Order: sequence, then structure tokens, then C-alpha cells
Amino acid sequence: MISEYRLRRRVQFYETDAAGIVHFSSYFRYMEEAEHALWRQAGMSIAPAGADIGWPRVAASFEYHRPLRFEDEFDVHICVVALTAKTIRYACVLEKDGERLATGALTIACVRKRPDEPVRAIEIPADIASRFQVTAAQLP
Amino acid sequence: MISEYRLRRRVQFYETDAAGIVHFSSYFRYMEEAEHALWRQAGMSIAPAGADIGWPRVAASFEYHRPLRFEDEFDVHICVVALTAKTIRYACVLEKDGERLATGALTIACVRKRPDEPVRAIEIPADIASRFQVTAAQLP
Amino acid sequence: MISEYRLRRRVQFYETDAAGIVHFSSYFRYMEEAEHALWRQAGMSIAPAGADIGWPRVAASFEYHRPLRFEDEFDVHICVVALTAKTIRYACVLEKDGERLATGALTIACVRKRPDEPVRAIEIPADIASRFQVTAAQLP
Amino acid sequence: MISEYRLRRRVQFYETDAAGIVHFSSYFRYMEEAEHALWRQAGMSIAPAGADIGWPRVAASFEYHRPLRFEDEFDVHICVVALTAKTIRYACVLEKDGERLATGALTIACVRKRPDEPVRAIEIPADIASRFQVTAAQLP
Repeated sequence: MISEYRLRRRVQFYETDAAGIVHFSSYFRYMEEAEHALWRQAGMSIAPAGADIGWPRVAASFEYHRPLRFEDEFDVHICVVALTAKTIRYACVLEKDGERLATGALTIACVRKRPDEPVRAIEIPADIASRFQVTAAQLP
Repeated sequence: MISEYRLRRRVQFYETDAAGIVHFSSYFRYMEEAEHALWRQAGMSIAPAGADIGWPRVAASFEYHRPLRFEDEFDVHICVVALTAKTIRYACVLEKDGERLATGALTIACVRKRPDEPVRAIEIPADIASRFQVTAAQLP
Repeated sequence: MISEYRLRRRVQFYETDAAGIVHFSSYFRYMEEAEHALWRQAGMSIAPAGADIGWPRVAASFEYHRPLRFEDEFDVHICVVALTAKTIRYACVLEKDGERLATGALTIACVRKRPDEPVRAIEIPADIASRFQVTAAQLP
Repeated sequence: MISEYRLRRRVQFYETDAAGIVHFSSYFRYMEEAEHALWRQAGMSIAPAGADIGWPRVAASFEYHRPLRFEDEFDVHICVVALTAKTIRYACVLEKDGERLATGALTIACVRKRPDEPVRAIEIPADIASRFQVTAAQLP
């Protein structure tokens, strides 16, 4: 069972904007990168080829404390903070040199996608839910 | 004085992802597009060339209700919902055919950026603050 | 029959980078936006829901003459310059105030995508090919 | 002296599109990532804070041979193939499991950027040029 993942990342030039810092939308991509690495660490892909289950995002947010600049190295620390029958909720902290840069949250829902059927929310399959554990850590 | 702006937009292919829908990070770009159009409507650029004032994002969030797909046409409706001495807060609704797709929020702060000085929060200059008015509308 | 399209566009902040100009990868997105608008002008979508035909990119290039900056308004002028049995080739010019900013080229191929079959190149269906005409204009 | 760099990369979900493959514009970002890693390997940043020298892209191209999909691992192999007084030219190959996926090219120019002066092309400073060597390898 897995409850968290820490991704080391470097800022790429195309993630910066004319203010000279990382564009605020890129943080959501960093959070997703860490989420998908967490799933791989749990032995799964969040979007295997041909899957009829999907994980649309229900809510996403960030608070920005300090900027990131080109070539900065930083950590994306993601934790599972809630597991319900149909959703997973993560908390995420971006850190550089021990300093918190940004704090994020992400909620995803499990859906069934079948040809010629409307997409609908379903319960998370047991073999997926059983791999995740809500973090015991106190997130900062 | 201006308090809201409605942007008509079409989904571009590069904004979609392998789930066949618009990637959740693109919504933050839609919200920013509408914000900058609101500023132009108020007779200003949010980032004029050579400006020593900047508007970093302090917090950003979205709740996702229904997906968007390639070539969908939709509206991005942004409203000024709070003005403090140093910050502006917006609410944002994405709609298609009268149906709400997503609900966003964005808070920005005013900073002074000068060479060889640390960036620091400042009060919003009066000639900028005077152009915005908190919306009277009940946002849904 | 259609042979060209001119798209008016404004630079968005998320398309700029820390050099203060539009990132070179964004030009390929501008070219694609104009391409898809050209298809809509011809009465088609390049990627209708559920289609078993696709149009992967075979080659893409840009030469950059002058930079674009935040909020610049410019034109993306795309022309069909070659039609073969299985491919379409476009030329593209970005212009601002009558000045050429960049010159692009794009070649796409028609493929059949069916579940449980490998993707393979096919001839462009006649009802699609018949809507396009190679431009007579001298592209600059 | 350095003449090439090989970057190992994994496809992120936000780099895919509704065709289920990596969007063609992302390849240009992969090429740039490898370029900047090559510079770091040579002991430099291509865009140090406060630099008055810049490296705008003059030309960029890709030919696409095979698609990339979510979570694919691949190599971005970039080589310096020409050095002139004012420009650097790279060739780039994307490979997966020994199979070539795409072939790119990139030309950049050295410019001086000073406040209140127009940007202008300059000769590459000797301490930068001396760190690069044109590859001896036969690029495929």
C-alpha cells in the first residue's frame, strides 16, 4: 500500500512566462506528474491503453507562496489524504531547499467509459483502492 | 468602472488530452485569458512592456462539473468579487449552451519589481483600483 | 472548395516565456489552430467524435523572423500548397501590421484507426479531398 | 568540450491529445529540454538570471515517424551539428527501444539584449563557443 510520493523535478523553459517565473498553470501539471508517478509506484497506470475506467478531475487548487524560476530544482510531494467509495483526494506540497513554494489539492473521481453509454461515476474497484492508504503524516 | 467580462472561446486540439477531453490545467489558462480581456476592457494591460508592477497569482482553483471536447464553443464569465488594498479576487464560470461546466476562483496580488530589489507586495495604485468594481451580480 | 484561411489571433500570457516573447513551440499551435479553422470553413471537423480516420502530422517546421510579445495581435495565414493521394501540405505565414513574423510548413497524412487493427495510411476520402484546392497564390 | 547529450524522458499526460498520442508541438519542447541539459552538461545555463545575451530560435523542424503514448519512456538524443560565428545548429533524434520515432533540427542565434537598445545578433562569445564541438558522429 502506498500513501505518498516525492518527485524531483527541474523547471523547463517552456514552463516559464514573460514575468520570468513558472506560469501558475504549470503547477497543476507538476501535481499531476507526481500523481501518476505515485500510481506507477503502486504498480498501476492511471490510464492504461484500452481501459474503460477513467479518473476525471473533480476539483483542483493551488496556493502560491514563492515563485519558481528556469532551471530551479524542486520537489513535488503528493499524499493521499482521503479515499471515499468513488473518489481519491490528494494534498501536494512543492518545496525547494526545504522551503515551501506552493500547496495544492486535487480530487479525482472514478468513472466508467463505455462506447455508446454515458460516462458515469462508479465505485473504485477494490484491486485499485486496496493499493492506496490515506497518509498518516501531518501535512504542513 | 468594470466588474465582469464574458469571453467566447473554442476548444483547440492542443488543449485536449488522451482522455478525449480538455486537460484540467487548460481551464486555468481560459480563466487567465478572460482576466486579461477584462483588463483590456478596462483600458489597461495587466503586463505592459517595462512595467515595474506585477500581478502574481496567490491562489487559483477550479471545480469541474462537465467535460469540454475539441471544437466545443463555450463562455468564460469572469467577475471581480473582492478588492482589497493589495489584492483582487475573481470568480469564474465556464458555460456551454446555458449549462455550467466549471467554476473557478483566482486571487492576484500587486507587487513592485525593481532591478536589484526583492519583489514586495504593494498597495494597488489608485488609477488601477478605480477602474474595477466588485460585481453586484449573484454568481451562481 | 477552399485553399486558404486567415486567422486573427492575440498572444496569450501563457504562450510567452522567460525571454519575454512567445515560446517557439506555440507557433506550431497557432498553425494548427488556423488549419482546423480552415477545415471548419470547408464544412468539416478534422477530428469528429468517433471518427475512424485521423490526420497525424508527418512533418512540421517554422522559420522565425521577428518575435511576438504578450497581447500582440497578428494573423495566421495558412494555405493548402499540395494535395497527394494520402497527404495534405500547408504553408503558413504569421504577420503583424503587414510584416512577416514567421514562416511555417506542415504535412499531414490520412490514416485509418480501427480498434484491434494497426493504424495505417489510406487514401484521402474523395468527399474530403474534393473540398480542398491547392492555392494559386504566390506565397511569400 | 561537448557535442551531444542523451535525455531519458517519460511522456506526461498533459503532453497527449485527443488522438491518444503526444501532440506534435510537444516534440519541440522535448528537443529544447535536451538542448538545455546539453548546456548544463557543458557547465552553463542557456538563460542565466540577468544575462544580456539571449538565444532566440531561428528555425525548428520535426519529421514524425512513429507516435508516442502516455507513459512511454524514450530518449531525446541531441547533437551539435554546426557552429558558425553567430549560430548553433542541432540535430535531434527521438528513440524508443532502439526505434527511431522522430527526427528534429534546431538553429539558434546569439543576440545582445540591453535595456533601451534594439536586440541585435552578435558573435557567440568565445568562452561559450569553446565549450561546444561539432559532433563527429554520423547522425542517422
